[in-house]
Amino acid sequence: MPEPIPIQPPVGRLGVLTPGMGAVATTFYAGVLAARRGFAVPVGSLTQLGHIRLGKRTEDRNPLIREFVPLASLDDLVFGGWDPYSDDAYTAAMKAGVLEARHLEAVGEELRAIRPMKAVFSPDWVSRLEGVDNVAEEESKMAQVERLVEDIERFRIEEECDRLVMIWCGSTEAYRPPAAVHQSLDAFEKGLKENDPEIAPSQIYAYAALTAGVPFANGAPNLTVDCPAMVELADRQGVPIAGKDFKTGQTLLKTIIAPGLKARMLGIRGWYSTNILGNRDGEVLDAPENFRTKEVSKLGVLEQILQPDLYPELYGDIYHVVRINYYPPRGDDKEGWDNIDIFGWLGYPMQIKIDFLCKDSILAAPLVLDLALFLDLAARAGKKGIQEWLSFYFKSPQHAPGLYPENDLFIQLTKLKNTLRHWMGEDLITHLGAEYYEET
Amino acid sequence: MPEPIPIQPPVGRLGVLTPGMGAVATTFYAGVLAARRGFAVPVGSLTQLGHIRLGKRTEDRNPLIREFVPLASLDDLVFGGWDPYSDDAYTAAMKAGVLEARHLEAVGEELRAIRPMKAVFSPDWVSRLEGVDNVAEEESKMAQVERLVEDIERFRIEEECDRLVMIWCGSTEAYRPPAAVHQSLDAFEKGLKENDPEIAPSQIYAYAALTAGVPFANGAPNLTVDCPAMVELADRQGVPIAGKDFKTGQTLLKTIIAPGLKARMLGIRGWYSTNILGNRDGEVLDAPENFRTKEVSKLGVLEQILQPDLYPELYGDIYHVVRINYYPPRGDDKEGWDNIDIFGWLGYPMQIKIDFLCKDSILAAPLVLDLALFLDLAARAGKKGIQEWLSFYFKSPQHAPGLYPENDLFIQLTKLKNTLRHWMGEDLITHLGAEYYEET
Amino acid sequence: MPEPIPIQPPVGRLGVLTPGMGAVATTFYAGVLAARRGFAVPVGSLTQLGHIRLGKRTEDRNPLIREFVPLASLDDLVFGGWDPYSDDAYTAAMKAGVLEARHLEAVGEELRAIRPMKAVFSPDWVSRLEGVDNVAEEESKMAQVERLVEDIERFRIEEECDRLVMIWCGSTEAYRPPAAVHQSLDAFEKGLKENDPEIAPSQIYAYAALTAGVPFANGAPNLTVDCPAMVELADRQGVPIAGKDFKTGQTLLKTIIAPGLKARMLGIRGWYSTNILGNRDGEVLDAPENFRTKEVSKLGVLEQILQPDLYPELYGDIYHVVRINYYPPRGDDKEGWDNIDIFGWLGYPMQIKIDFLCKDSILAAPLVLDLALFLDLAARAGKKGIQEWLSFYFKSPQHAPGLYPENDLFIQLTKLKNTLRHWMGEDLITHLGAEYYEET
Amino acid sequence: MPEPIPIQPPVGRLGVLTPGMGAVATTFYAGVLAARRGFAVPVGSLTQLGHIRLGKRTEDRNPLIREFVPLASLDDLVFGGWDPYSDDAYTAAMKAGVLEARHLEAVGEELRAIRPMKAVFSPDWVSRLEGVDNVAEEESKMAQVERLVEDIERFRIEEECDRLVMIWCGSTEAYRPPAAVHQSLDAFEKGLKENDPEIAPSQIYAYAALTAGVPFANGAPNLTVDCPAMVELADRQGVPIAGKDFKTGQTLLKTIIAPGLKARMLGIRGWYSTNILGNRDGEVLDAPENFRTKEVSKLGVLEQILQPDLYPELYGDIYHVVRINYYPPRGDDKEGWDNIDIFGWLGYPMQIKIDFLCKDSILAAPLVLDLALFLDLAARAGKKGIQEWLSFYFKSPQHAPGLYPENDLFIQLTKLKNTLRHWMGEDLITHLGAEYYEET
Repeated sequence: MPEPIPIQPPVGRLGVLTPGMGAVATTFYAGVLAARRGFAVPVGSLTQLGHIRLGKRTEDRNPLIREFVPLASLDDLVFGGWDPYSDDAYTAAMKAGVLEARHLEAVGEELRAIRPMKAVFSPDWVSRLEGVDNVAEEESKMAQVERLVEDIERFRIEEECDRLVMIWCGSTEAYRPPAAVHQSLDAFEKGLKENDPEIAPSQIYAYAALTAGVPFANGAPNLTVDCPAMVELADRQGVPIAGKDFKTGQTLLKTIIAPGLKARMLGIRGWYSTNILGNRDGEVLDAPENFRTKEVSKLGVLEQILQPDLYPELYGDIYHVVRINYYPPRGDDKEGWDNIDIFGWLGYPMQIKIDFLCKDSILAAPLVLDLALFLDLAARAGKKGIQEWLSFYFKSPQHAPGLYPENDLFIQLTKLKNTLRHWMGEDLITHLGAEYYEET
Repeated sequence: MPEPIPIQPPVGRLGVLTPGMGAVATTFYAGVLAARRGFAVPVGSLTQLGHIRLGKRTEDRNPLIREFVPLASLDDLVFGGWDPYSDDAYTAAMKAGVLEARHLEAVGEELRAIRPMKAVFSPDWVSRLEGVDNVAEEESKMAQVERLVEDIERFRIEEECDRLVMIWCGSTEAYRPPAAVHQSLDAFEKGLKENDPEIAPSQIYAYAALTAGVPFANGAPNLTVDCPAMVELADRQGVPIAGKDFKTGQTLLKTIIAPGLKARMLGIRGWYSTNILGNRDGEVLDAPENFRTKEVSKLGVLEQILQPDLYPELYGDIYHVVRINYYPPRGDDKEGWDNIDIFGWLGYPMQIKIDFLCKDSILAAPLVLDLALFLDLAARAGKKGIQEWLSFYFKSPQHAPGLYPENDLFIQLTKLKNTLRHWMGEDLITHLGAEYYEET
Repeated sequence: MPEPIPIQPPVGRLGVLTPGMGAVATTFYAGVLAARRGFAVPVGSLTQLGHIRLGKRTEDRNPLIREFVPLASLDDLVFGGWDPYSDDAYTAAMKAGVLEARHLEAVGEELRAIRPMKAVFSPDWVSRLEGVDNVAEEESKMAQVERLVEDIERFRIEEECDRLVMIWCGSTEAYRPPAAVHQSLDAFEKGLKENDPEIAPSQIYAYAALTAGVPFANGAPNLTVDCPAMVELADRQGVPIAGKDFKTGQTLLKTIIAPGLKARMLGIRGWYSTNILGNRDGEVLDAPENFRTKEVSKLGVLEQILQPDLYPELYGDIYHVVRINYYPPRGDDKEGWDNIDIFGWLGYPMQIKIDFLCKDSILAAPLVLDLALFLDLAARAGKKGIQEWLSFYFKSPQHAPGLYPENDLFIQLTKLKNTLRHWMGEDLITHLGAEYYEET
Repeated sequence: MPEPIPIQPPVGRLGVLTPGMGAVATTFYAGVLAARRGFAVPVGSLTQLGHIRLGKRTEDRNPLIREFVPLASLDDLVFGGWDPYSDDAYTAAMKAGVLEARHLEAVGEELRAIRPMKAVFSPDWVSRLEGVDNVAEEESKMAQVERLVEDIERFRIEEECDRLVMIWCGSTEAYRPPAAVHQSLDAFEKGLKENDPEIAPSQIYAYAALTAGVPFANGAPNLTVDCPAMVELADRQGVPIAGKDFKTGQTLLKTIIAPGLKARMLGIRGWYSTNILGNRDGEVLDAPENFRTKEVSKLGVLEQILQPDLYPELYGDIYHVVRINYYPPRGDDKEGWDNIDIFGWLGYPMQIKIDFLCKDSILAAPLVLDLALFLDLAARAGKKGIQEWLSFYFKSPQHAPGLYPENDLFIQLTKLKNTLRHWMGEDLITHLGAEYYEET
């Protein structure tokens, strides 16, 4: 039996700070508030509902994950955030139109009390947002960092938080490849001082968080903490980080289906994915410069799962198309339609079509919760830098240099659960099960 | 490093005997013949195309499975079978209409040489087949066993086979629950002598195979070897068995999607599955008595994967409907349409619709190949009785008493691959990967 | 220019009586009440929203239908009905779950005032309904007629109605072919006196209505007024009738798509239609005896539209399947999925798949309104017996003996509009339009 | 009974000339050749398979259209064309991959004899075509006209044609709005002499055809004959013209579904249409400049059918998106996916999703045949200029100034059939049918 590792107990309040207080963040706040009053179930959250099998199948040990590892309780969570619009969380949630009025009313008072701090924002990085009214006067990037650090520390004191985590819930930023300024912490800090235009707002947030010792996860496909400079900072500060791009909707299904087809060695000739959605995210992504960032994140998933270098006959020549169309009639209700052209025995063609009528923020909210709780756990367990075991939550999982990422949802879940078993001193599960059939 | 287990090398010819020489069996024969001449790729076969990762991700060791474990070569396979229709394999394949004429012509001579032996058949067990012309005169069940054993031994000698395996590729038999006669080998053998009506034709084949020391796998949902009597016989004879019901089509997708939804703790309210198909299988399954057998097999899959006892809030109240409709316009091209009503955060509803335009026999043929090769491997490795590591191939995996079956395709694949790693003395894969991030 | 026919003006109140006060009827009541207060738009109603083109395209004359022909105003409608459950219309609507609470509340007082009269009901004709509490004591069929006539006359006086119409909004009755008792009015009246078991409850209602001089339309596939006895009675009483089976959902789409394919001379090999629905109607139709009535109505539509006798190469061999499955997760939200196997030039195959996420009662309610208003118009225009021009609203349009029915939605609409033009003395529209291109 | 108009009998051979000898044209040639040998049925052709109802329903007079009006026989057709690639029709058809080899072989000799004349072509008007090898040396536009007229006259003599028609089967040209040069015949002829860059290749063909007295139809969305200059020329020459853009695939379904929804007064909030196709047409349309021409044609259809000015509540605010994606895995097999957001009674939302697995050229080929035969009929009937009665075949029907076009497929079919009835002296059909129910 292996040894458990030491983990600090989750004493006191945990503050969850979200840059971005739109549909995803407010759905997350409202859901946690409703769940802790017992009005609603936080469906989709592994930390709240998931069980974990321990030992052999016949032992019948399947505790809840939150009873197996020492997670913060929902009762101890406190919420805060920044947004370029000044609406409080209740108003923002009503505008987002994700949750019904009856659900929002039930926790309305608490939501109204959550007011956004002034955002670090630039239309160069997120276009198509109009009428922003909660952005500070023109200031240097270093001044922005300092302001955010002050916001963080003020929040920590005012809300009497023992610990903090920050989860990026803002819009997708325009695509730009990593630049020189991202290659080392020295270069990045120099860039901050010199107002380097390659430094995006999300990186200002991340730098402030890590500087303040706050774990950081990135729910959008932006670079943010996925560069050597930030990894260096996280390691130096002893803070865990994770990213990037919440795995929801069509890509979630893709990382379910693709491993299934590959498990069965069924070939793929083409995969056409289109999305229609009418929320603010849809409007932002209708702009080609913003969509490009998303596209890179979405397209890479298949390539990594399918290993075309190992399977050139099956996956060496896939025509993969991903489209997003702004379509207001649906609001936050997203629809993803996939057509997959596969082939089997002797190359005979078959087709799979998937229509997913989903709700983006409903799928994303539980990921914010899980990441907040797991990052906090990792921090208390003394883990720092990239948390690859959280790949499960991301379209583009961040990983150590020299490694390939794991995008297969099932490998990701095995990785996550075996990590928890390992930390708690339980045997890893291999599904061998030979003992039931072998004579000794 | 663990020790590899001793495995006899695959010397000589391996005979593959199929009760049933319809669409599945002939597609299997033709594909293997075409593949070994290099005309076509045996897509869908893990034994032929699959790689297996060994060691750490950074070691980059990913051999082909067939180069990692000592499997029989396609060049050493010989085919034979029984069928109630007297058509040779070429004619049967043309009538089945699965493969195009140009593919069948290329291996036409070899196919025409495969002629069915006289079938053990009863319209009580498979209705709706008309004009059967290759069934022996009325005979007792024990006489049928003896005839089949003679067929097997004659085939072994005439085709100069070193080893044999038998894979049931026949129609689905009518549903009947296990009876007293199935509870022990003694009872079964007494039943054979007394012509017990509860003994189905597929069990006559299985009994003959095991008696002759031939490993047996069952591709249909019939009871066949899934009863104490047959397990006892397999153990006594030291012969491996596996079953039941090839996992193809809609159920394959179900065992891909359901684990994905469960991984993410998304709830399910309803799952409606309908199928249209126009082949002989469709005609047989349009009869309620035959469909019942299939329905039991298809419905159980969700229940086991989702563990409603552990997750009553998410999976405790699923309305699950499965329908099969005979629809001749499509022939062997099957179409499965699924509607899945799911729910997420706070119970908000979402929907997934899947339309799978598939080809039943194209999906089943590689399973016949893999099972033939893996059962033969197991026999040479000295394994006997239920081979749970082959669950990957079945809708209703056979398993030891007191265990629950694993229906999750991804757990099944892990089980299969870790079994091979274990036999060959390689480390099991746990996807922990902590070593890339931890300092020593 | 033709002469208009004389039509009595719609003076006074029009009572609409519905046998059946479930989802359809209450959605109809609530919608009319909301519309006349200006809260909501009666979408789907030709009488309320439809325009009609008059004269040449260049004349630009397109009045609203309700301003072109003298229809009763929504303000003059009064509602009443019978139901085997004693819930008032508000309670019944809440249970049906079609309209949201906020829509029902807005007209709650008026709905609560609509209380069902005691139903004529028999579980022999509609199975699967449990807990009925508003059915009169055992009585003879003739006594039932007399009771209903009294109900009608009492309603007429108490509600101060100038005119009445009755629209069957009840469940589908069990299928039975027309019997001797339906062949003449004499036979029918004899049957009433002798309590003939072949006389269904819906026929008791129809007989009472016609006897009382009240026009009758049948929204279900039951025989009801579609037999010689009732046609004779309608003619004798000088009362218009129409039927049968509201054309909604999948069949509506079928009568849109099929004429389109036929217009283009595209062939059809197969049409597979399946429905899932979770309302009371779904539960009733899950019983094979009830479904049979519906199936006959649904299957006939294609045959009549496609004229396989004229087009044997295109439509002579269609495999047409219609299925309904009770599926509670959806409630009144119905889903119809169609697969259509078509073929074109040289016989090349193509496929159309249609997924219709519809709401049965939302589609049916405007038909109740239109039929009430148009039947009342016909009565004031002195029309009696079968109103074939109302075929537009029915899956199985009732028609004169010796004629084939028109099921093509577009021919039906032309018939309806040209009938109105004819009555009002306007030129019929032929779409010839030669005058724009010919020189005189 | 009206008088029939005089029509010249179809004596002698009819030459069908197609600018463009790609997938559509060669599928058309091959199909006619196969049909006249009796190998295959020209499914999709109204002229070949369609019947027409004459008189009252009870008269049972439904002759074949080709036996009712004096059309040219398939046996009298001769084919020719121009293409920028020099492949003969057999080779071009093999490359297009629409028809199977076995169908092409059966008429291979005749197809190989059809060799393209040198095309008038410009990459400014059709981009993305590479390796064109059958284009004449640089020449002036007027020289191009003269060359084409020579080609036409040479073909007429060599092939011993009594009459000719020309049908544009070439690619979609880049979008440019009508210019001054298109406003009158004088301006156009001046433009020809001055090599005006606004004159597109398709207009050179049309000008040559009309000059030579050859009726012209336009199967693509290009301007071509849809401008005052060409209408003037057609009138002057006494030649019929028709256009534009063959109505196939997704737009065909749209003009079937939209009239159906409107018939029932169901509202529409959004209509999202996406297409995937992998043929040359798909490649050309993937270029935004080419797609723009198509988009204008596709978007206008809904607007015209739904009359949002008359129905602002129902159709005044539709979000309509049309996308085409090049997707090579499918070749000529096109897939159109539509999502339609509709609403009914009180505004309640419903959804329709349509997946159309179609074959572009299979749907277009019979339109080429019908247009050739009907234009020839119109010419023999002395009709000249725009033939609005052929709107049935086009996405953007050409019509007289001051008129709105009819896009509703069912109105178009009524117009076509009533035109034929009118020409032949039969009563127009109005579907009134009052005579079956009225007493005299």
